[in-house]
Amino acid sequence: MKKFSIGIDIGGTNTAIGIVDEEGNVLVKGGIDTPSHGDIDRYVKEMSVAVKDMAKNVKLTNPDSEILGMGIGAPNGNYYSGTIEYAPNLSFKGVVHLVKLLKAEFPEYQYLALTNDANAAAIGEMIYGGAKGMKNFVMYTLGTGVGSGVVVNGDLVYGHDGFAGECGHTTLIPGGRLCGCGAKGHLEAYCSAPGMKRTAFELLAHYNDMDSLLAKDSFEDMTSKKIYQAAVKGDKIALEVFELTGKYLGQGLADTVHHLSPEAIFLFGGPTAAGDYIFKPTIESMENHLLPIFKKKIKVLPSKLSAGDAAIVGASALVWKEMEK
Amino acid sequence: MKKFSIGIDIGGTNTAIGIVDEEGNVLVKGGIDTPSHGDIDRYVKEMSVAVKDMAKNVKLTNPDSEILGMGIGAPNGNYYSGTIEYAPNLSFKGVVHLVKLLKAEFPEYQYLALTNDANAAAIGEMIYGGAKGMKNFVMYTLGTGVGSGVVVNGDLVYGHDGFAGECGHTTLIPGGRLCGCGAKGHLEAYCSAPGMKRTAFELLAHYNDMDSLLAKDSFEDMTSKKIYQAAVKGDKIALEVFELTGKYLGQGLADTVHHLSPEAIFLFGGPTAAGDYIFKPTIESMENHLLPIFKKKIKVLPSKLSAGDAAIVGASALVWKEMEK
Repeated sequence: MKKFSIGIDIGGTNTAIGIVDEEGNVLVKGGIDTPSHGDIDRYVKEMSVAVKDMAKNVKLTNPDSEILGMGIGAPNGNYYSGTIEYAPNLSFKGVVHLVKLLKAEFPEYQYLALTNDANAAAIGEMIYGGAKGMKNFVMYTLGTGVGSGVVVNGDLVYGHDGFAGECGHTTLIPGGRLCGCGAKGHLEAYCSAPGMKRTAFELLAHYNDMDSLLAKDSFEDMTSKKIYQAAVKGDKIALEVFELTGKYLGQGLADTVHHLSPEAIFLFGGPTAAGDYIFKPTIESMENHLLPIFKKKIKVLPSKLSAGDAAIVGASALVWKEMEK
Repeated sequence: MKKFSIGIDIGGTNTAIGIVDEEGNVLVKGGIDTPSHGDIDRYVKEMSVAVKDMAKNVKLTNPDSEILGMGIGAPNGNYYSGTIEYAPNLSFKGVVHLVKLLKAEFPEYQYLALTNDANAAAIGEMIYGGAKGMKNFVMYTLGTGVGSGVVVNGDLVYGHDGFAGECGHTTLIPGGRLCGCGAKGHLEAYCSAPGMKRTAFELLAHYNDMDSLLAKDSFEDMTSKKIYQAAVKGDKIALEVFELTGKYLGQGLADTVHHLSPEAIFLFGGPTAAGDYIFKPTIESMENHLLPIFKKKIKVLPSKLSAGDAAIVGASALVWKEMEK
């Protein structure tokens, strides 16, 4: 009997849904819009129709199979309560009891779990990816924001309230850049994709460099991918963006190491596609900030989850993790 | 049958030894010099003589009793390997196999465990102190340095290498004050007792204030206690030292909250005797740095371990914690 789990990733605009096997292969993939109407009951109905459709198809092509449960990654998703709480980028207000509502739609599933997207990615890395067999590691997801998931003794750390692992909101530069959360100087304001763009514009302003390839784009049009492409062509500003981003990120990773003494830190997301451009300065900066007892001991590794499916696959991994308990 | 455990705290100059009951009461207390001769075998012999003497006395006054084991707190003490590794303030060089050597001296004890002093204090807080019943909390010890111990799901976090919980060495101010470890801007350089002294001297220099009560002491003679006494008398510089120390510490505590989502953070050590002078600005600063999902949720509390016995009592708590496993 083949076993599958459903992974759902709730983003600001799109809700991705996939059915995944125990090796992390995505059998079918689909999605619906994450609505702006703010009506959670209606959204759960829409989601359920899509999921049931996909599950039926999987059952047709794999008669000897069973779907064991559903894992959901969502911004401000709380594992303990199964709720999404005050998520700034979703239209649902206040506290939304997502797991309870989904249980009513899917009474046949034994395992139903919710956490935030970065925590789901960390579990995905542990079940299917580069952290297989590791008991203590941390995952940083670099994208529009910076998320993280902390694993200690083989379990994800949820903390007292269910919201542990918000390393993107540690303070790098007191009184520094405004963060999306309203505070100043947070890691996310420097090491996310938009953070790299902000660094690029600071450097353009600082050097008044008209020859840079980055001088041609508006603030609206600039992306971390364009910065990477310019760096590959040897653009000085772009290269310095990577140096600085690594310097910032390495400082943050060192703080994480001093808290947790992990075996490895995995980096996931768009900016990590730049490889050595980002990994080299990050590792160098981290090492500079570490106590001697930690130096040259902590691996900083690219995630082994495939970029396109990671969110779905990570969410689906919650089900296998629940089964261990 | 009454049960006791032995707590040993290895400091730079003194090794404190105590025999403690299950409620954290210290029955007998003693100690030997931490030697400068660097000979670990000789030191273990000296320690064993002292311990055996004390154990004999306890047995005489409590015939119906049993000593179950020995817990040791030491700088750079590694729980996994039972070793002290490259401790800068001890005369023993390299890696010292303390637990192995003590096991040979005390084959009758079932439980023998070593960790660093701040981790021992955290376990002490959990077994005997204010963290009883808490599953997720962090302990900061403010003294000559700043140590910390992290508890997740009811267990101390040792991490991959056994050295987790070095929060005193997270970076508060990039490029800031030189830390004892050689790096710059670490929390310890601002929030330890010497860190407060450094802040006082910075402020004296900044304001050129001849009227301050703190203007009378040399850098050598200044202490955090004198700063507290001056603050109580309304001295402006001293009051600002506490405001700034709280601002720095609160930033660090917020970083810890974003990693771990603890129920509470306990503060222990000399500077915490100043009560509201240090707690108020610390809590205010922490709240300012927190994501909305954490605001007004995290308790910042004074340790309930008694200042004089905390190191011994904390170390002894390791034994009860081992017995749970």
